[in-house]
Amino acid sequence: MYAPVGIIGAGPAGLLLSHLLHLQGIQSWVLEARSRDHVERRVRAGVLEQPTVDLLHEVGLGHRLAAEGLRHEGTRLRFAGTTHRIDFAELTGGRAVTVYGQQEVVKDLIAARLVAGATLLFDAPATATAGLDSARPSVRYTLDGTARTAECDFLVGADGFHGISRAAIPAHRLTVYERAYPYAWLGILARSSPAGDELIYARHDRGFALHSMRTPEITRQYLQVDPDDSVDAWPDDRIWAELEQRFAAPGFTLGRGPIMDKGITPMRGFVVEPLRYGRLFLAGDAAHIVPPTGAKGMNLAIADVRLLAHALGGFYADGREDLLDAYSETALRRVWRAEYFSWWMTSMLHRAPGGDAFGERLAYAQLEHVATSRAAATSLAENYVGLSADRPWAYRL
Amino acid sequence: MYAPVGIIGAGPAGLLLSHLLHLQGIQSWVLEARSRDHVERRVRAGVLEQPTVDLLHEVGLGHRLAAEGLRHEGTRLRFAGTTHRIDFAELTGGRAVTVYGQQEVVKDLIAARLVAGATLLFDAPATATAGLDSARPSVRYTLDGTARTAECDFLVGADGFHGISRAAIPAHRLTVYERAYPYAWLGILARSSPAGDELIYARHDRGFALHSMRTPEITRQYLQVDPDDSVDAWPDDRIWAELEQRFAAPGFTLGRGPIMDKGITPMRGFVVEPLRYGRLFLAGDAAHIVPPTGAKGMNLAIADVRLLAHALGGFYADGREDLLDAYSETALRRVWRAEYFSWWMTSMLHRAPGGDAFGERLAYAQLEHVATSRAAATSLAENYVGLSADRPWAYRL
Repeated sequence: MYAPVGIIGAGPAGLLLSHLLHLQGIQSWVLEARSRDHVERRVRAGVLEQPTVDLLHEVGLGHRLAAEGLRHEGTRLRFAGTTHRIDFAELTGGRAVTVYGQQEVVKDLIAARLVAGATLLFDAPATATAGLDSARPSVRYTLDGTARTAECDFLVGADGFHGISRAAIPAHRLTVYERAYPYAWLGILARSSPAGDELIYARHDRGFALHSMRTPEITRQYLQVDPDDSVDAWPDDRIWAELEQRFAAPGFTLGRGPIMDKGITPMRGFVVEPLRYGRLFLAGDAAHIVPPTGAKGMNLAIADVRLLAHALGGFYADGREDLLDAYSETALRRVWRAEYFSWWMTSMLHRAPGGDAFGERLAYAQLEHVATSRAAATSLAENYVGLSADRPWAYRL
Repeated sequence: MYAPVGIIGAGPAGLLLSHLLHLQGIQSWVLEARSRDHVERRVRAGVLEQPTVDLLHEVGLGHRLAAEGLRHEGTRLRFAGTTHRIDFAELTGGRAVTVYGQQEVVKDLIAARLVAGATLLFDAPATATAGLDSARPSVRYTLDGTARTAECDFLVGADGFHGISRAAIPAHRLTVYERAYPYAWLGILARSSPAGDELIYARHDRGFALHSMRTPEITRQYLQVDPDDSVDAWPDDRIWAELEQRFAAPGFTLGRGPIMDKGITPMRGFVVEPLRYGRLFLAGDAAHIVPPTGAKGMNLAIADVRLLAHALGGFYADGREDLLDAYSETALRRVWRAEYFSWWMTSMLHRAPGGDAFGERLAYAQLEHVATSRAAATSLAENYVGLSADRPWAYRL
């Protein structure tokens, strides 16, 4: 099997790249270790930046997004018993975010790729790579119990934090930057009515909580917990009681309902540099992880492949290598901006374990600052709704 | 000796309070442990916020300030070999800072108080307080080798971090918030020409440096050093060489000259709450310390006594106690905003010891953010030029 571009991973990054290349007349194959059903059900991120939404519309993927996505023109910060609204639209000239689950983006992409006759292989785990620094990289993978090989001119690793792509790069060629945050998120998906029409980011002396929703009937909510906490310690009643305490505010009621999904995610910052080794390019979680507080993870993955689609377009249209050469540095600039923003949001909203009282006061002062300074609120809003894209997604645009 | 208000400490806070009370017809005495000559020569802060400058003009202390102060409508951030200007005036509607040494403010205040016949005692160390929770607090002090007592209705502790005022409050009545920053500043005062007309805040892989000036012939410059570093390890040549490396930029030349003063200051965040015990009120460094990066220390002290002057004015004019009761909470809101801003500036500009590479990247991303986002630059500028005053300085205004 050969195509000009090989892609490992059928998450939003890999699938979207395949789609963007297709629209430029560039063939690709995509290998995915898990089943189609699995990737279409995986509950992950759910907030799309304005540039992400704009891109999906531009490339023909906006139909269901427009019908089912929930446009949010603001968000709420709740602390010290008061609630402050950040008006994204007013502060950023009409920009907003759209709540639309990652798995919905994935479903739309899979449908579009299959209609176009893409080579999109599920249950096909990649096991090894070869020739990454040659003109013909290849990937060993398994399908139907048989080991096979796929070849390409350029390989894109969009196989997540635990994938084989990053691991295939000689360790001495990568610099790893890492920060372990001293807390985790317990996330639930519940059949309950959202308490309002916008997300609520709450800082409470008991810790952080986030109220968000996926549909008008389904909420997605999070609690700051210890990194070594276990879901077994969190029966449903305890979760609801804790959410109620952390969101408490005059006139506020939190609706309860059946919890359909429950999990604990550690919070981590992680970046490797550069994002390229020979003819292998890393994109999305394979290269960088942000804590979820700023809702940047999936949006960064999409920004990565947008750059790659443009650069690969330039290579196949005009033989240009400069755009591919610039990919890593250009993408990393945005990645570090997002790491900074995510860290800034995270430290503002989470209780530091170990009781650093000085840090607590700083965080409340930071919240006061955002709540009283238009400049500070604008800075939050423009990062949250997404920085403008560096380049058009297609080379010929 | 009796006056309605007793003040310990003849720094900017104590002297200005005495002046603001005098203008409202309220007598005070001021006790200062050191000599007049000492306090008039003590080299400390040198950047006055816009609200500080406005206040000094408003209360008749602006003559020499207008003639000798250097108005700065912007500052420079230098990092990664480039220099970015923050245009205070443009970003904040015409506000700016004024470079004018703390000792010059002190000289102006002492002159004004003595002309008005103030009770201002130098070489008069306060040794003990009594009756702080009574209607007639008193202070024991020494003058000309004799122990004496001064009485008042209200006592203001403006005697700095090491003074006796804060220590006179029962420990269980105060909450102490403290953060030790893992670096110190080596500061020099040199007879050399400023390299430009605005301050330069530099972040370099070797650490932070600040280029500032006191007059067109005298520079005040700082280097980040280890907290346990010693001035003996820093002969003049080493200081100049290090400054040159950290400020290096195309076309930039640093003039050398004789170093007249050299010292190392640890960086610390410190706040006590509340700022009141009975009839004792704390103001300035006696109650809170900020790291010097945001140039907030003296400005906070002045904001404190501005509030106190208004509140004491209300008490003597109308018997109001509510303004005195509100002092601590009102002042602390500004104090914590300044602690946050100072921490934000400090962590952006200093190299973390121990080589946290992730943190280094975050700091450079933060600098990029400030350099590319108007909102982020505005947020820096409005904090730097100073938040608006909470109240008029006088009760009847």
